[in-house]
Amino acid sequence: MKKVTIQDIAKELNISFSTVARALNDHPAISEATKKLVREAAQKLNYRQNKLASSLRSGHSYTIGIMVPSLGVSFFSSVVHGIEKIMNENGYSILLYQSNESYESEKKGIETFLNSRVAGIIASVAKETTQYEHFFEIQKRNIPLLFFDRVAEGLQVPAVTIDDYKGGFLATEHLIRQGYKRIVHITAGQTIGIFKERLRGYVDALQLYGLPVDKSLILYGDFSLDFGRQCVQELYQKKVAFDAVFALEDFTAMGVLQQLLDYKVRVPEEVGVIGFANESFGALVTPGLSSIDQQTVPMGEAAAELFLKMLRSEDLYNNLPKHIVLDPHLIVRGSTERLASS
Amino acid sequence: MKKVTIQDIAKELNISFSTVARALNDHPAISEATKKLVREAAQKLNYRQNKLASSLRSGHSYTIGIMVPSLGVSFFSSVVHGIEKIMNENGYSILLYQSNESYESEKKGIETFLNSRVAGIIASVAKETTQYEHFFEIQKRNIPLLFFDRVAEGLQVPAVTIDDYKGGFLATEHLIRQGYKRIVHITAGQTIGIFKERLRGYVDALQLYGLPVDKSLILYGDFSLDFGRQCVQELYQKKVAFDAVFALEDFTAMGVLQQLLDYKVRVPEEVGVIGFANESFGALVTPGLSSIDQQTVPMGEAAAELFLKMLRSEDLYNNLPKHIVLDPHLIVRGSTERLASS
Repeated sequence: MKKVTIQDIAKELNISFSTVARALNDHPAISEATKKLVREAAQKLNYRQNKLASSLRSGHSYTIGIMVPSLGVSFFSSVVHGIEKIMNENGYSILLYQSNESYESEKKGIETFLNSRVAGIIASVAKETTQYEHFFEIQKRNIPLLFFDRVAEGLQVPAVTIDDYKGGFLATEHLIRQGYKRIVHITAGQTIGIFKERLRGYVDALQLYGLPVDKSLILYGDFSLDFGRQCVQELYQKKVAFDAVFALEDFTAMGVLQQLLDYKVRVPEEVGVIGFANESFGALVTPGLSSIDQQTVPMGEAAAELFLKMLRSEDLYNNLPKHIVLDPHLIVRGSTERLASS
Repeated sequence: MKKVTIQDIAKELNISFSTVARALNDHPAISEATKKLVREAAQKLNYRQNKLASSLRSGHSYTIGIMVPSLGVSFFSSVVHGIEKIMNENGYSILLYQSNESYESEKKGIETFLNSRVAGIIASVAKETTQYEHFFEIQKRNIPLLFFDRVAEGLQVPAVTIDDYKGGFLATEHLIRQGYKRIVHITAGQTIGIFKERLRGYVDALQLYGLPVDKSLILYGDFSLDFGRQCVQELYQKKVAFDAVFALEDFTAMGVLQQLLDYKVRVPEEVGVIGFANESFGALVTPGLSSIDQQTVPMGEAAAELFLKMLRSEDLYNNLPKHIVLDPHLIVRGSTERLASS
């Protein structure tokens, strides 16, 4: 079957080649009525636009790249859902790349996006990443870039995050109000800004409620189910007294919960456990895992709305970038609820 | 800053333009020593290859598209991990697209991949999809296509699946050996082949062990946590006697488990529950959810190895396609283990 061309449509409608081409590319000089005629003829003739060629010419594709640390973490897959919904409604397709928390992989992914001529990139930064040239490169090429949740510090780029300080404060305050007094905080190496903020919220809540900030209760390291288990083992080996754990995120909190249950510790009666991110498994386990909800779908939607504005903007990075900060919500489940009212 | 070109490298090394160009594209006619020199000079001069243009010329990019129904399902994100590992080791980048089980979205994603000039596509078919022109289109363009887990029936394309019949048989046999006799099977509308196979395994196991196949125990519909809950509600409303449930996948099984616990039914003493896919939450809930493991990482690795052979093949689709079938494994946890030995 012969490939249908713009010429065939022009002939069919008895109008010029350039009118058809501009109509297909939604050029403002062409009337809506003509565009409609052209689209109908294109459909009738089964014309398949070479979108790549056309996007190379117009410098504009309808594909957005989203870079995430891991899609196996429901926080990220849920934010992606929010972004997809809005971007799809606006005619954009989403390509995803997962860095698996690796700096090298993240660089490679950005290069892949750029080589695929995406119209823009929405990203959340990998755990390992401390250098940001690959993100600077996007900005230098004047391609829209927006961060969500984990931001590359020092770049003047729009971002949507939650108030991690407030999240850390809420989690700690909730534990205090439930009567817990010796509250452990597990946090990561401090390269990721959001974890610094959660720690700051923890410290401020303790101080506001007149509890001492005991350095032996703050465990630095990593985040994972295994790391959570190791922290509890460590606390028991060192005979550190504690009656609650606030972990920087839910997988770590889940490791804490499992190790406590293995040690026959009653949760929440003897020790309370709260995580962060409201991962989907938290509602399925017993006891249910209390957590801080990060409003994933609103975050995705806000990121998409802001990004659409960038895509339409002529002057991407010269105005001060917008930073949307969403409020986190406390989710109370069985793992911390030992009093009737909190 | 002036953009560094192939000419600059040729001048630097005092060799011809075409030697540099072929060296950069790893042409077999160029010696390894020359390629090394060229690569070093390119790096020194900060030459940035226009990979898009070069892949358009050579008809070959180093990007692979993977189409999955949902990355929020750990089965899929885990298979993707297996694929990524092998493909990255071989110099390929992975772009992901999730269809969210929608036919329209799947078509759009394939179009996006084709417009991004991926070197090939690895796919698992959406729940809604019953027409396969978009997959035929890939094959027609002689672009490598491989299916994993969910296959488009009627296409002569390589695939990696597990033996779903055997998985259904193993799950049902395990329940029978645990002494359960009235075993419900929840299955989906029968457009997806893997679910037909699981049902067939269920029926054959019952028959082999001399148990009746009771149609009132086979529930057709959908798959989701909510659907699992609804099935249990329905069985109680219709007063159908049953002592075990084999659900087509784990989220549905989890809904069954939750609804049974809400009804104060003891699991596994009164009713046993087994799912399929060994989702990550199954080990975290109480009681643990028995399931059928689909060997996700081996599946991803097998898919990648087979796909690499396709990428290197001159004659993609003319030989009969290879179909690798992996063996499923029974995972026994608290939700079905009521006897000391099974």
